Amino acid sequence: MINGSDPILLTPGPLTTTPATRQAMLRDWGSWDAAFNQMTDSICRDLLSIVSGQKDFVCVPMQGSGTFSVEAALGSLVPRDAVVLVPNNGAYCTRLLKILERLGIAAIELKLRDDEPAGVARIEEMFLREPRITHVAQVHLETSAGLLNPLDEIAASCARFDKRLIVDAMSSFGALPIDVSKGGIDAVVSASGKCLEGVPGMGFVIVRRSVLEASEGVSRSLALDLYDQYAYMQKTTQWRFTPPTHVVAALRAALDQYKAEGGQAARGARYQRNCAALIEGMAALGFRPFLDASVQAPVIVTFHAPRDPAYDFKRFYEAVRDAGYVLYPGKLTEVETFRVGCIGAIDANEMLNAVAAISRALGMLHVRLAA
Amino acid sequence: MINGSDPILLTPGPLTTTPATRQAMLRDWGSWDAAFNQMTDSICRDLLSIVSGQKDFVCVPMQGSGTFSVEAALGSLVPRDAVVLVPNNGAYCTRLLKILERLGIAAIELKLRDDEPAGVARIEEMFLREPRITHVAQVHLETSAGLLNPLDEIAASCARFDKRLIVDAMSSFGALPIDVSKGGIDAVVSASGKCLEGVPGMGFVIVRRSVLEASEGVSRSLALDLYDQYAYMQKTTQWRFTPPTHVVAALRAALDQYKAEGGQAARGARYQRNCAALIEGMAALGFRPFLDASVQAPVIVTFHAPRDPAYDFKRFYEAVRDAGYVLYPGKLTEVETFRVGCIGAIDANEMLNAVAAISRALGMLHVRLAA
Ligand SMILES: Cc1ncc(COP(=O)(O)O)c(C=O)c1O
Ligand SMILES: Cc1ncc(COP(=O)(O)O)c(C=O)c1O
Repeated sequence: MINGSDPILLTPGPLTTTPATRQAMLRDWGSWDAAFNQMTDSICRDLLSIVSGQKDFVCVPMQGSGTFSVEAALGSLVPRDAVVLVPNNGAYCTRLLKILERLGIAAIELKLRDDEPAGVARIEEMFLREPRITHVAQVHLETSAGLLNPLDEIAASCARFDKRLIVDAMSSFGALPIDVSKGGIDAVVSASGKCLEGVPGMGFVIVRRSVLEASEGVSRSLALDLYDQYAYMQKTTQWRFTPPTHVVAALRAALDQYKAEGGQAARGARYQRNCAALIEGMAALGFRPFLDASVQAPVIVTFHAPRDPAYDFKRFYEAVRDAGYVLYPGKLTEVETFRVGCIGAIDANEMLNAVAAISRALGMLHVRLAA
Repeated sequence: MINGSDPILLTPGPLTTTPATRQAMLRDWGSWDAAFNQMTDSICRDLLSIVSGQKDFVCVPMQGSGTFSVEAALGSLVPRDAVVLVPNNGAYCTRLLKILERLGIAAIELKLRDDEPAGVARIEEMFLREPRITHVAQVHLETSAGLLNPLDEIAASCARFDKRLIVDAMSSFGALPIDVSKGGIDAVVSASGKCLEGVPGMGFVIVRRSVLEASEGVSRSLALDLYDQYAYMQKTTQWRFTPPTHVVAALRAALDQYKAEGGQAARGARYQRNCAALIEGMAALGFRPFLDASVQAPVIVTFHAPRDPAYDFKRFYEAVRDAGYVLYPGKLTEVETFRVGCIGAIDANEMLNAVAAISRALGMLHVRLAA
C-alpha cells in the first residue's frame, strides 16, 4: 500500500511523496498544543530561510490550496485603488487576472505567447506607457507550459521603477533559486504540495513585514485575510482557524528531508537531472518539447501530442497509468500537448521508466510519431 | 506512534481519529485520476444522504478549514442586497456577523446569552419587527459553550415566513439529526474533521440545487466561489483547484467507518454516552457544567473552572495532557471555564479515564473544588 502498487505521479502536484512524509500523518495533533504550534513556527522559519527572507520578511501559512494563498496575498496586500500589471503567458497568469477582477482591483494585462517569457523590456515599456501601474503580479514558473520567467530581472526592474511585486512561485518555490533579500519583491506565494514534496492542503505567503503590517483592514474576506492570520498567530502562536494538522505534520517531515537532501541547490539539481533524462528519453521516441530549452524550467515539460489520428489523450493516459505512471493533460489552448512532471520523490531512473512506459503505450495503441 | 503514546484529543476538532482513517493517508492520489474523483463523488453522495438531501440538494466540497466553507456559503448564496438575521449566542455566531460585515452584507444581530438557545419566539419577533430580513444565518451547535439551537423549529419558522436559512452545522453534522428534506433550509455547512471523524483540511456545503444554480456570479472571491466549484466539478468530475488529496482519502475512510457504526443514530448515541459519562464523572469530582442539561449538546461540555486561586488553566491543561488527555480552553468571555469534548474515535471508557486524569491533576496542583 505505502509504496507498492500505486502509480508514480508525474504531475505538478499532488505528486509522489516519500513514505516518511506520509507516515508523519499517522499522528493526531491538537491545534492548541504547544508542540504543534512549535511545528508550525519551525516550518515558517525554514520556508523563510529557503528564500533568504529571515531579516525583513515573515511567513504566513494559510489553509486551502495554493490559489487560496494567491488570493489571500492579492486581497490583503494590494490596496483597492492599485493598478496591477500582469504579464500573461499562461493559465495561472490568467487566474491572477481573474482574482483581481473579482476583488475589484484594476489590472493591466501584458499579453504574451505561451512560450514567451515575461521580458523586462516589455514590462518596462508598460511601466512607461502606463505610469498608473503600482503593482506587478508575476507567475515565476508558468506551469501551463512549464515556462520560467526571469524573476531576478523583473524584481530588479520593479525596484528601479518603484513598483510593488507579488510573485506566484507555486511550482518553483524550493526548487529554483529565489532570493527576496536582493530587493524588489513584496511577497512570494507557494504551497505545501509542490517542490517541497509535502502533501496538498496548505499554502503560505512570504511577505515583507512592513508591507504586511500596513495591510490591516484591507482584506474583504475574513478567511483569506493574511494580516489577521498573521496577527493572531503572533499573539497566540496558533492558527486562526482549524489548521490542517496532518498536512502540517507532513510538510514538517518533507522539510526535514529537503534539508537532508541539501536544500534548494540539491533539490533543483535532482529535478534538473530528471528533466534532462525525460527530454532525452522522449526525444529518442520522437517527442518534441513545446518550449525552447532556454526557457524550460526543470519542473514540468510540455510535449507536442503525436499527430497520428490513432492518438487519444485519454487512452494514452490510461495505458501509461496502467504501466505505473500518471501523466498530466496539456493546458494550452492552441496546440495539442500533454505534460510530464519531473518533480516529487523520484529520480532520473523513474523518468526513464516512464519513458519506457510511454513507448509501450504508444505501441499498444498503434500510435506512430512523425519522423 | 499510531495509537501509542499520543494523547487523546478531547477537543471539538482536530480530534482523535482511528488508525484506519489515518492509514488512508499513506497513499498518494492524482487529482486528475478517475479513481480519486470517484472517491470525491462518493463522499458527496454520502454527505447528502446523512441529511436526507439526495433529492433537491447537492454537496459542494471546499478546500480549507470550516470557516472557509462558511464564508463560501455566505459569499456565494446571499445576494449583496440581502438582510441577514444572526441569532447570536457565541463566538461562532459572532464569526458569521464578521464574515457578513466583510462581505458588505447587511446583518441584524439578535443578541442572546451564551446559555440561551435561539428560540423561535424571539426570531419571529425579529421577523415582524424587521420585515426587510431576507435570510437567517444560524449556528446549529454553538461550540463556544456546547449549546444546541432548535434547528427544526427555526427551519419551520423560516419556511413559514419565507426567509432563506443557512446553517453552520460544523460541530453537529453527522452526530445530531438534520433533515433538509423537511424544508426551510437552503444550505448546511460542515467540515471533514468534526463529528465525521476525518482529519481537518476540507469543508463542504450541502445546498439546495435551485439556490446554488441561481448563484452564478455572486461571489466576489474566486477561491471561495461555491458556484464555480460546483460547475467545474459537474463538468469535469474534478476539484477546481488542487484538492487536499490525503484529507479526502481520510474522509472516505472515516465515512466507511461511520456507515459501519450505524450512521448518524449510532454516532449520536455514542457521543451521548460519552457526554453522560463525562458529566457524571465530573459531577462526582465537584464540577458543574455551564449549560442546563436541556440545551447541552453531546459534543463538547463547558465546565466552570475551580474557584480555588491555585487553579491555573495552563498548568491544569499540561498536567492532564501529561496524563494522556488534551482538554480545550473555555471560549466564554464572562465566566472562567474549560471545555471537554466528547467526540472523536473514543468511547465512554476514555471519558472516565479522562475524568480520572483530571482528578489526579487537581490533586497534583493542590486545587480544591468548592463543595
Ligand atoms: C503557478 C501556479 N499557480 C497557482 C497554482 C494553483 O495552485 P492550487 O491548484 O494549489 O490552487 C498552480 C498549481 O499548480 C501553479 O502551478
Ligand atoms: C460551530 C462552528 N462553526 C465554525 C467553526 C470553524 O471551523 P474551522 O475552525 O474549521 O474554521 C467551528 C470550529 O470548531 C465551529 O464549531
